[in-house]
Amino acid sequence: MSQERTEVGSLGEFGLIEHLTKNIEFHNASTLIGVGDDAAVIDHYGKQTVLTNDLLIEGVHFDLMYTPLRHLGYKTVVVNVSDLYAMNATPTQILIGIAFSNRFSVEALDEFYEGVYAACARYGVDLIGGDTASSQKGFIISCTAIGEVAPDEYVKRSGARKGDLLCVSGDLGAAYLGLLLLEREKKIYLENPQIQPDLEGEKYVVGRLLKPEARKDIVEFFATAGIRPTAMIDVSDGLSSEVLHL
Amino acid sequence: MSQERTEVGSLGEFGLIEHLTKNIEFHNASTLIGVGDDAAVIDHYGKQTVLTNDLLIEGVHFDLMYTPLRHLGYKTVVVNVSDLYAMNATPTQILIGIAFSNRFSVEALDEFYEGVYAACARYGVDLIGGDTASSQKGFIISCTAIGEVAPDEYVKRSGARKGDLLCVSGDLGAAYLGLLLLEREKKIYLENPQIQPDLEGEKYVVGRLLKPEARKDIVEFFATAGIRPTAMIDVSDGLSSEVLHL
Repeated sequence: MSQERTEVGSLGEFGLIEHLTKNIEFHNASTLIGVGDDAAVIDHYGKQTVLTNDLLIEGVHFDLMYTPLRHLGYKTVVVNVSDLYAMNATPTQILIGIAFSNRFSVEALDEFYEGVYAACARYGVDLIGGDTASSQKGFIISCTAIGEVAPDEYVKRSGARKGDLLCVSGDLGAAYLGLLLLEREKKIYLENPQIQPDLEGEKYVVGRLLKPEARKDIVEFFATAGIRPTAMIDVSDGLSSEVLHL
Repeated sequence: MSQERTEVGSLGEFGLIEHLTKNIEFHNASTLIGVGDDAAVIDHYGKQTVLTNDLLIEGVHFDLMYTPLRHLGYKTVVVNVSDLYAMNATPTQILIGIAFSNRFSVEALDEFYEGVYAACARYGVDLIGGDTASSQKGFIISCTAIGEVAPDEYVKRSGARKGDLLCVSGDLGAAYLGLLLLEREKKIYLENPQIQPDLEGEKYVVGRLLKPEARKDIVEFFATAGIRPTAMIDVSDGLSSEVLHL
């Protein structure tokens, strides 16, 4: 983190929004109006619009002791576009609301948004709106991701039938291992701050937790190969739990 | 509030979502897929899609000591559809995410959603998704409202020109008076719980704070009368502040 500290109060609400959004570049012709009005406007030109929404709460969904804000911003976008890919849709826009206590400086928020913009560039998504608010405690993120799909080409969970082939698009469990590892190192560090975390050789599992990617490639592969699965689901609580939702 | 208390944990996350959303009725043909999949799907059939997003945090945006949860649910929908009307759009769908501590029972959440559904019925809006999460402290609401507008019929803030007539569609300041009044009565009550709040004759200002309505009628009037304002803005921080944003 940068050593400077600018108080959010010194910018004011509108100054802060201007500061955080001044470098937005749009990737989609469907983005007509972005940040700065009462609402955003999009036009998916005959395609259908797909939407998903997530709340991420400090102390519940993430621990800032071992989660860099830049990674958190990146992950916020990724977990939401992942739900759109799971509908066979292409992400196009995103709305992000954040609430934070006075523990967070402008530089800290900049780090978070650096991650957001990096993920937006990676997935071709436009940040078109959101909200900034105070919280009494901790960092709170609300994210709504918007995507498009050709008419009736979306894929639901409920389309699965007996005899269908069940495929998993990646390896599972690595992020959970990463979490256990970081929680262990956090505990050791809190008991004895002299001991530095030992993450030697664990880059993959830690990376899967802190900087996950969504499966853009899978939806692109389906389009190229002309494959339309009978059902799709985003795995977040583990395979055994998600299979019950098909 | 009902005297029963059902712990949220007794339903589980999916049981809770099923419980809170089982009576949803859709008002719009544009709602293709609602709650229950990875994401929702809408089709505005050639119209443009308008989106807005708000975060509401207990202790910052509302005080549950004098805000009934039913009113809070209603107001959550209203403040968001109000931003859509301010773009000359018609609200059609809504996504609501809530996070709450274990202080809140299923009955309390039911009250909140009663208000949400009442406002959805009043404004013809479909609840199509959201999120439920734990919070370490208090009640947190994220709301994304979605509307539609005929191609390029949306009205921006920036269209105002010198010489334009400036109109305000309602009376201003009543909600602020209501807030001052309730804060005064709260202070008196905390100092002496024997004294009951004195709100005699103050129903209008208290109602303007706790149960506001959005100006559906104005957008309908413009459509009927064939009027298209050069600019529109939702007044939330006071007239003098908003005029500077035109």
